[in-house]
Amino acid sequence: MQLLKEKILKEGKVLGGNILKVDCFLNHQIDIELLNEIGKEFRKRFQDKNVTKILTVEASGIAIAVIAAQYFNVPVVFAKKTESKNLDKEVYEGSVYSYTKAKHYKIRVSKKYIDKEDNILIIDDFLANGQAILGLKEIVDAAGAKLIGAGIVIEKGFQNGGSLLRESGINVESLAIIDSLEQNEIVVRN
Amino acid sequence: MQLLKEKILKEGKVLGGNILKVDCFLNHQIDIELLNEIGKEFRKRFQDKNVTKILTVEASGIAIAVIAAQYFNVPVVFAKKTESKNLDKEVYEGSVYSYTKAKHYKIRVSKKYIDKEDNILIIDDFLANGQAILGLKEIVDAAGAKLIGAGIVIEKGFQNGGSLLRESGINVESLAIIDSLEQNEIVVRN
Repeated sequence: MQLLKEKILKEGKVLGGNILKVDCFLNHQIDIELLNEIGKEFRKRFQDKNVTKILTVEASGIAIAVIAAQYFNVPVVFAKKTESKNLDKEVYEGSVYSYTKAKHYKIRVSKKYIDKEDNILIIDDFLANGQAILGLKEIVDAAGAKLIGAGIVIEKGFQNGGSLLRESGINVESLAIIDSLEQNEIVVRN
Repeated sequence: MQLLKEKILKEGKVLGGNILKVDCFLNHQIDIELLNEIGKEFRKRFQDKNVTKILTVEASGIAIAVIAAQYFNVPVVFAKKTESKNLDKEVYEGSVYSYTKAKHYKIRVSKKYIDKEDNILIIDDFLANGQAILGLKEIVDAAGAKLIGAGIVIEKGFQNGGSLLRESGINVESLAIIDSLEQNEIVVRN
């Protein structure tokens, strides 16, 4: 997606530890016009798939998911990272390994909001090692729903998440793939 | 807002401890059409105020804020609850007291994304004791920006947050006000 690639090259910053900082438009301050273009692009890439629900995980996936959902005319469900009094007792759980924190944490969706008739599109901001998407897939599988695919805004092509997910049969569509952040230079795949 | 009131009466559930559960359309599963009507209503209530930015706090405020932002043509900034490698060192902080957890926590916004020229509209899903909004106001004040008001989807009128905020001079617009949840019955103000 050309507009997104240009935005990343123009406004993205590289931090140490292979971190690409795009918090001026994607995950702290949010550029709503860009998000609408991203939503349209996801719609184009997953059209004719009869998506019935978009699934993401709090917090930074939510903005992208709800704007995109407008083009699919479907509800969004976001998995919760914390236990809450508000959450139903009956939940589907996924396990996510955090490399940063070197531990597993749980994500949860109430059983009421996904069922076996659903065709689920997962949407998230980043794909690096793929653990969050695998946790969401666990939830989709537990519900007996069909996973249509995963729409990712930025994939770190130099980490193994993309191949991990594609090899496990998930239809991954990434709108921008970063090939390298070495020497503080952003290299976006053409 | 009539549509919202009807939705709350029809689909809301009362849990013990004065909790109104609306996770089937607002803060777990998200009804995008309803959110668009909510966004239009906020626009109507804060028109001619020259809002330059919408501010919210993760996670459940994000969906409402980004959909509403489409009607204001402004960016959204969401305050973060956790420290993150991705967040700038230079931040404005607000302190939020959690009655549930009986302790204070910090919320943070990078100094880059609010400045003294900004006219800020705060948006959030719930107003109960008002602590989250006060924490966000602290951030707006620290930036020297102007606080236009607070747009709330559901105010618990039987808790003190609404009066606390209004007495401190904030223009609070709540789209639905709950007068009571006693005996598991939802009473919405007319």
